Amino acid sequence: MVNKIDHIGIVVKDADEALKAYTEMFGFEVVEEMGGPGGEFKAVLIRAGDITLEFLQPLTDEGSFAKFLKERGGGLHHVSFATNNIENDLKALKAQGRKLLNEEPMSLPSAKIAFIHPEAAENVLIELVQRSHDLPDYTVKLA
Amino acid sequence: MVNKIDHIGIVVKDADEALKAYTEMFGFEVVEEMGGPGGEFKAVLIRAGDITLEFLQPLTDEGSFAKFLKERGGGLHHVSFATNNIENDLKALKAQGRKLLNEEPMSLPSAKIAFIHPEAAENVLIELVQRSHDLPDYTVKLA
Repeated sequence: MVNKIDHIGIVVKDADEALKAYTEMFGFEVVEEMGGPGGEFKAVLIRAGDITLEFLQPLTDEGSFAKFLKERGGGLHHVSFATNNIENDLKALKAQGRKLLNEEPMSLPSAKIAFIHPEAAENVLIELVQRSHDLPDYTVKLA
Repeated sequence: MVNKIDHIGIVVKDADEALKAYTEMFGFEVVEEMGGPGGEFKAVLIRAGDITLEFLQPLTDEGSFAKFLKERGGGLHHVSFATNNIENDLKALKAQGRKLLNEEPMSLPSAKIAFIHPEAAENVLIELVQRSHDLPDYTVKLA
């Protein structure tokens, strides 16, 4: 079952610029930085208190993040719900006939994730994530 | 300072339909239901665990929610950060020269809110909210 927001995904033109702006405004700290598959995008996870945001910067002209950036100028892209049992959640959603982008979870190094189709969720792209460990806990700095 | 996500605002065509879908999918419960200024929109706050979502249904053809629904078909509209001192946050943001939609907080019956301009935040509409009391705590039902 889902019980908290793991993170909010935001497509940006420049993850370092975004990080600088949000850090100055709200005191966010970098939690994790990673590349995308095949160098298609760069992802930076940042956190302040219980808030975790994921900046997604497309590195090529291909892919859904690049399309989103071109069409909308970036912004809110998806919301990720943390779950303690992603297989059960997907099974329940399939039993309800909900449209999914991933029928089975995708395995990342430290998490399993799956996306629900926006058509099933009021035009919102929802990610389910089951992490194998908690994200590191960072001290919050005042903005 | 901001320390958690208060809620995520989602523009929908029909708040009751959205509520039904999300309740079935994730076991959300209604926390609060309210009308908008002058009957321009209906807002339904729903919660499961630490997740709170706000469904925003335009009730007329006027206003920013109606425009968002028409142009994008609805979806993720804003993210709201909880703060314990909205005046200080706004003062700090103004001192940084950040573009704000509200220079002073707007007073609602149980909260003070203000919006940061998307241009200041990577095309994300961010609301700051300082609640005078916590939202009621509801039991989470399994999806």
